[in-house]
Amino acid sequence: MAAPPPARPRRLLPLFLGLFQGALLLFFTLFVTYDKVSAQAEDANLVANQLYGTFPLFQDIQVMLVVGLGLLLTFLPHYGFSALTHNFLLLNFSTQWALVLQGLLRHFHHSEIHLDLHNLLTAEFAAVTVLISVGAVLGRTSPCQLLVVAICEVPIYFASEWAIVTHLGVLDVGGTITIHVFSCYFGLGVSKALFGAAQRPAHPKETPTPRSDLLSLVGTLILWVFWPSFVAVLCEPGDAQHRAILNTFLAMSASAVTTVVASSLLESDSKLSPGHLQNGSLAGGVAIGAVANMAMPPVAALALGSLSAVACVLGFRFLTPLLARKFAVQDQCGIHNLHGLPGILGAVASVVAILVASEDSSGSQSSQVSPAGSNATEAAWGQQGDHGAGRQALRQAAGLAVAIGGSLLAGLLTGAVLRLPCLARPPERLCFDDSLYFKIQDDAESPGPDGAAEEGALALKEQV
Amino acid sequence: MAAPPPARPRRLLPLFLGLFQGALLLFFTLFVTYDKVSAQAEDANLVANQLYGTFPLFQDIQVMLVVGLGLLLTFLPHYGFSALTHNFLLLNFSTQWALVLQGLLRHFHHSEIHLDLHNLLTAEFAAVTVLISVGAVLGRTSPCQLLVVAICEVPIYFASEWAIVTHLGVLDVGGTITIHVFSCYFGLGVSKALFGAAQRPAHPKETPTPRSDLLSLVGTLILWVFWPSFVAVLCEPGDAQHRAILNTFLAMSASAVTTVVASSLLESDSKLSPGHLQNGSLAGGVAIGAVANMAMPPVAALALGSLSAVACVLGFRFLTPLLARKFAVQDQCGIHNLHGLPGILGAVASVVAILVASEDSSGSQSSQVSPAGSNATEAAWGQQGDHGAGRQALRQAAGLAVAIGGSLLAGLLTGAVLRLPCLARPPERLCFDDSLYFKIQDDAESPGPDGAAEEGALALKEQV
Amino acid sequence: MAAPPPARPRRLLPLFLGLFQGALLLFFTLFVTYDKVSAQAEDANLVANQLYGTFPLFQDIQVMLVVGLGLLLTFLPHYGFSALTHNFLLLNFSTQWALVLQGLLRHFHHSEIHLDLHNLLTAEFAAVTVLISVGAVLGRTSPCQLLVVAICEVPIYFASEWAIVTHLGVLDVGGTITIHVFSCYFGLGVSKALFGAAQRPAHPKETPTPRSDLLSLVGTLILWVFWPSFVAVLCEPGDAQHRAILNTFLAMSASAVTTVVASSLLESDSKLSPGHLQNGSLAGGVAIGAVANMAMPPVAALALGSLSAVACVLGFRFLTPLLARKFAVQDQCGIHNLHGLPGILGAVASVVAILVASEDSSGSQSSQVSPAGSNATEAAWGQQGDHGAGRQALRQAAGLAVAIGGSLLAGLLTGAVLRLPCLARPPERLCFDDSLYFKIQDDAESPGPDGAAEEGALALKEQV
Repeated sequence: MAAPPPARPRRLLPLFLGLFQGALLLFFTLFVTYDKVSAQAEDANLVANQLYGTFPLFQDIQVMLVVGLGLLLTFLPHYGFSALTHNFLLLNFSTQWALVLQGLLRHFHHSEIHLDLHNLLTAEFAAVTVLISVGAVLGRTSPCQLLVVAICEVPIYFASEWAIVTHLGVLDVGGTITIHVFSCYFGLGVSKALFGAAQRPAHPKETPTPRSDLLSLVGTLILWVFWPSFVAVLCEPGDAQHRAILNTFLAMSASAVTTVVASSLLESDSKLSPGHLQNGSLAGGVAIGAVANMAMPPVAALALGSLSAVACVLGFRFLTPLLARKFAVQDQCGIHNLHGLPGILGAVASVVAILVASEDSSGSQSSQVSPAGSNATEAAWGQQGDHGAGRQALRQAAGLAVAIGGSLLAGLLTGAVLRLPCLARPPERLCFDDSLYFKIQDDAESPGPDGAAEEGALALKEQV
Repeated sequence: MAAPPPARPRRLLPLFLGLFQGALLLFFTLFVTYDKVSAQAEDANLVANQLYGTFPLFQDIQVMLVVGLGLLLTFLPHYGFSALTHNFLLLNFSTQWALVLQGLLRHFHHSEIHLDLHNLLTAEFAAVTVLISVGAVLGRTSPCQLLVVAICEVPIYFASEWAIVTHLGVLDVGGTITIHVFSCYFGLGVSKALFGAAQRPAHPKETPTPRSDLLSLVGTLILWVFWPSFVAVLCEPGDAQHRAILNTFLAMSASAVTTVVASSLLESDSKLSPGHLQNGSLAGGVAIGAVANMAMPPVAALALGSLSAVACVLGFRFLTPLLARKFAVQDQCGIHNLHGLPGILGAVASVVAILVASEDSSGSQSSQVSPAGSNATEAAWGQQGDHGAGRQALRQAAGLAVAIGGSLLAGLLTGAVLRLPCLARPPERLCFDDSLYFKIQDDAESPGPDGAAEEGALALKEQV
Repeated sequence: MAAPPPARPRRLLPLFLGLFQGALLLFFTLFVTYDKVSAQAEDANLVANQLYGTFPLFQDIQVMLVVGLGLLLTFLPHYGFSALTHNFLLLNFSTQWALVLQGLLRHFHHSEIHLDLHNLLTAEFAAVTVLISVGAVLGRTSPCQLLVVAICEVPIYFASEWAIVTHLGVLDVGGTITIHVFSCYFGLGVSKALFGAAQRPAHPKETPTPRSDLLSLVGTLILWVFWPSFVAVLCEPGDAQHRAILNTFLAMSASAVTTVVASSLLESDSKLSPGHLQNGSLAGGVAIGAVANMAMPPVAALALGSLSAVACVLGFRFLTPLLARKFAVQDQCGIHNLHGLPGILGAVASVVAILVASEDSSGSQSSQVSPAGSNATEAAWGQQGDHGAGRQALRQAAGLAVAIGGSLLAGLLTGAVLRLPCLARPPERLCFDDSLYFKIQDDAESPGPDGAAEEGALALKEQV
C-alpha cells in the first residue's frame, strides 16, 4: 500500500531496547536485592497485612494504566493496536528505567536497594507522566521517539518531584501537581518543539468512528472506576485514606454529570460530543489529587469536580483550537484539557483549602474542619496556625509554578532531540496507521476505495 | 439524515442537570460532613481494616455497574454509545439523588449526616434499581425521561426498602426482593404506562450484530465474575460473608451451565441464542441474594442457580412474546426474565430455606444446619423455633408481595409522567440510534444504502 | 448458508450437560457441606481476615480466566462469540467436575467434604488446564468434544499433580510444571490424535482482522495485569507472597519489552506481529511460577522473563511451522510457545535456583540468599544442605519429565476418544464460524459476496 521507511532506522528500536534490557540485567545484578525475610512471626503478620492493604489498590492502578488508559487512546480508528501496544511498552520501559534511576539515587545514599511494592508504585507513577505526555503527539511519532521521551522525562520527573515535594514541601498526595500538571506541560513542550510552527490540516484517519469512540469510552469508564485507588494508594492507612477515596468518588461523580451539562450547552444542536465525555468525566480525579486527604467538607470535592469538568469541556471547545491556530501547538489527545486545566484548578484548590482550614481552625477550633488526620499536613503547617498556613499556601503556588515552568522547558528540549532524523518520525501520510508498525491489514474499518479489491480477495479465499 | 426534534426540549437536559448539581452543592454545604477523625491509634487501625475489607468489594461493584452493566446493554448495534453513556449518567445522578434523600431522612432524625463508604454503597444500591428498570424502555426514551424515572424511583425504593426490611423484617442480604424484584416490576409498569396498548413491529435497528452481541457478552462475563462481591458486601464479616460468596459462586456456575442446556433444548436446530447466554448466566446471582447467607447446604445454591436459569430462558422464549402480544408490555432488555422471575424464585427459596432450617434444627439440633452465623437471622427467628420460622417465612412472602405490588403501581404512575410532551420522547424512526444524542456518524455498522456516498467522502478526504 | 450437521448429535450437548447437572446436584446433596460456623469471635475474626487476604486475589483470577483468557481467544474474527462462550462453559463445567472429583477423593479419606474458597481455587486450577489445552484445537472442535477433553483431563491433572507435588515433592507454587507444561503437552497430544497425519491448508476464516487482533490484545493485557495474583494466591501470606508478586511483576515486565525486541528482529521489515505480542508478553508469567517464592535475587526474575519471551517468539516463528510440517501437529493458539517452552524454561530455572541457593547458603551462610521464608522449601531441602538441594533439583527435573510424558500419553488417548463420530466434529468448511453453534448472522466482519443481498435486506427493513 505504501513504501515503508528505510530499513536501517527500523532496526534502531530492537537494538536500543535490547541494549537497555541488557543494562537493566547488569544493574539489577549489581545493585538490587529484596528485603530480608522477616525473622519474627509478628513481623511476617505485619508484612501480610500491609500487602493485603496495598496490593488490591496496586492491581487497580495496573488495570487503569494498562487497560483503561490503553483503551482510552484507541479513539483513532486505524491506530488502536498501536495506541494500546505503545502505551503498554512505554509503561514497562519507563517503570524499569525509573527503577534504575531510583536505585542509582539510593545507591549514592545508602548503598543498598531493597525492592518492594512501594518502590514499584513510585516507579509506576514516574511512568504515568510519560504515558500522559505522549498523548500530545499520539499517532505522529515513531516508537523510538516515544522511548526517547521516556528516557528524558523520567529523570526530570524525579528531579521535579524532589524539588516540589521534598524541597518545597508541597502537599500533593494524588499527584495533581507533580504528575498531571508536570506531564501535561512537558508533553505540550515536546509537541511544540517537535512539530514547529507549521499548522497541519486534519488527517483523514484522525476522525473517530462510532466503534473506536465506544472502545475509548470503555477505557474512560475503567479509569473512572479505579481512580480512587490511584489517589488513595499512597495515603496513610486509616481516616486519611478513607477520606481520599470518598473525595475522589464525589469529585468524579460530579465531573460525570457536569460534563453532560457543559457539553450539551456548548453545542448548537445540544448533541453530546464523545470526546468531551471521554475526558471530562475524569477531570475531577485529576483535580482532587492535591486536596483529597485534606480537611475539607464533602461539598468541596463536589464543587471541584464540577468546576474541573467545565474547564475541561471549555478547553476542548475553545482553547485547543486556539492553541493550534495561534501558537501552532498540536495536542492530539487534549491532554491540556484533561491534565493541564484541571491540574491547575486542583493546585489552586489546595491553596484555598489550606487557607480556609487554617482560618476555620484558628477561629472556631472545631475539630470537624481541622486537618484530616494527615500527619504530613499537620507536620507541615497545622501547629503553626495562620502563619504556617499562609506559608504552606505559598509553597503550593510555588510548586505549581515550578511544575509548569520546569516541565515546559524540559519538554521543549526533549522535543528538539526528537527531531533527530535517526528516530524515524513517520511521514504525514503514514501517520495514524497501525500497518506502519504492525503486521496488520488495516482494511476492516474503512470500506473505502480498496473495498472492491478486498472483496475479490475474500471471494478468492472462500474458494480455497 | 433525519430532522432532529425541536431545539427547545433539547435544552431541558442540561438545564435540569445543571439545576440539580447546584441544589446538590447547596444541600451538601448545609448538611453533609465527614465523620470525625479517629482520635486514637487503635480506632485508626480499625478504620483501616474495615476499609481493606470493604473497599475491594466496593470497587468490584463499581466495575459491575459502570463497565459490566454498561457493556451488557450495548447489544443494540447502533445504540452502544448511548447505552453506555446513559447508564453511566443515570448511575451518577441516581447515586447523588440517593445521597440527598438519605441525608434528608437522617437530618430529620439526628440532624447530622456523616458520609462514609457504607453510605455510598447503600446509595449505589438505590441507583441500581434505576439502572435495571430503564432496561425495559431502553432505546425508545430520551435522557430526560430516564432522569425522571430516577427522580421517581429512588425515593420509592427507599420507602419500599424501609417497608420490606425495616418494618416487615424480611431477610434479603443480596437485594433479591428489595432490588431485583422491585426494579423489574417498576420498569414494567413504566413501560406499560409509557407505551400504552399499541403493539410495535420490530425496529430495523433492534437486531444485534455479531459484534454487538460479543461486546454485550463481555459485559455479562464482567457481571458474572464480580457478582459475589455485590451479594456479600453488606454481609457480616466472617463466616456469613464467606458463605455468601461461595453460595453466589455456586449458583452462578450452575446458571451458566444450565443456560446452555435450556437454550439448546428450546431451539429447533439446537443453536444457542446469544440473548439467553447474556442473561441466563446471571440469573443465579439474582436468585441467590435472599438466601446467600442463610443456613443451607451448598446443593441448595446449585439447585437455585439451575432453576433460575431455566426460568430465565423459558421467560425469553415464551413469556416475553406473550406479554408483548397479550398485554402489549414492551420489555426491551428482558428484565422480567433476568430480574423478575429469578427474583421471585429467590424469594420463594428464602421461604423454603427458613422452614427447612427450622425443622432441621428443631428436629436434630445439629449445628450444621442452624442459621449460618447471621445475627440478623438469629435475632429474627432463630431462637423462637418453629413458630418464629413460620412467621419469618410469612414475612418473606409478604415482602415479595409488597415489592411487586408497590413497584408496579409506582411504575405505572411514573410511566404516566413520562408521557409529558416536554420530555421529548424520540419519534419511532429515530429510536435505537446514537446519532440522535451524540455527535457520532452512525455508519460503521450498516454499510447500507448510504455506503456509496460515504465512500465518496472518504475518497475525497484521502486526497487532502 | 451451509447445511448444519444432522440434528441428533446436536442434542447430545444439552442431554449430556443436563445429566451432568443432575448428577452434580445428587453428589452435592449426599456429600458436600460447608464448614461449621466458627463458635468464637476470635475465630470469626480470623476467618474474616483470611477472606480479605484471599478474596481479592480470587476475583483477580476469575477476571483472568473468564474475561482475559476469553478475549485472548477472540483473535479468530468469525469465532469470537464461540471462543468466549466455550471458554466460559468449559471453565464452569471443569470446575464443577473438579469439585466432584476432589469431593470423591476426600470422601474416601475422611468421609466429610467441607467447601471453602481454597477448595474452589484448587478446582479452578484444574479447570485452567482444560482451558489451556483446548487452545490447540480451537475452532475445529464441537462443544461436545471440548467437554470430553474436560472429563478426561481433570482427573488426569489431579493424578499428575499428586504424583508431582505430593509424591515427588516438587516445588511449583505458580503451577509452571503442574499446570502449564502439563496442559500444553496434553493439548498437543489431543490435537495430534484428533487430526492425525493430514496437513491442512490455511482456512480462510483463520486470519485475524485488525479488530479481532485488538480485542485479543485487550485479553492479553487483562491477563498480564492480574497474573501476579494467579502466581501468589496459594503462597504463604507474608514475605513469600510479597516476593512472589514482585518476581512475577518483574518477569512479566521483562517479557513485555523483550517480546518487542525479539518480534521486531525476526521479521524482515521489522514490523511487530500481533500474535507475538499477544503471547510473548505473558511468557514470563508462565515461567516464573516454579521459582516465584524461592530465594533468588530480583535479576533472576527479569532474566527468566526475557528468556521465556525470546523462547516464545522463536517458537511462533520457527517451531510451530516445523511441528505442523514435520509432525503434522496443529497448534491453533500456539500453546506450545506460550505454555510449553516457557514452562520448561521455568522448570529448569527452578533446578538452577535450588542448586545456586544451596551453594550460596553453604558457602557464605548469608541469610539474604537462603530460602525465602517458604516453609515448604525449608522442609523439603533447606536444612539438609547441598545433599538435600541436589536431591530437590533432581525432583524438579523428574517432575518435569512426569508432566510431559504423562500428559502427552493421556492427551493422545483423549484425542483418540474425540474421534468418536457421535461427538460431531464440525466439517472443515464450517470451522471457525460462530454461526454453526449460535443464532448469529456472521456477516458483519466479511462484507464478501453476500454483501449485496444483505444490503437489500437492510434496505427492505428500513422501509418498515
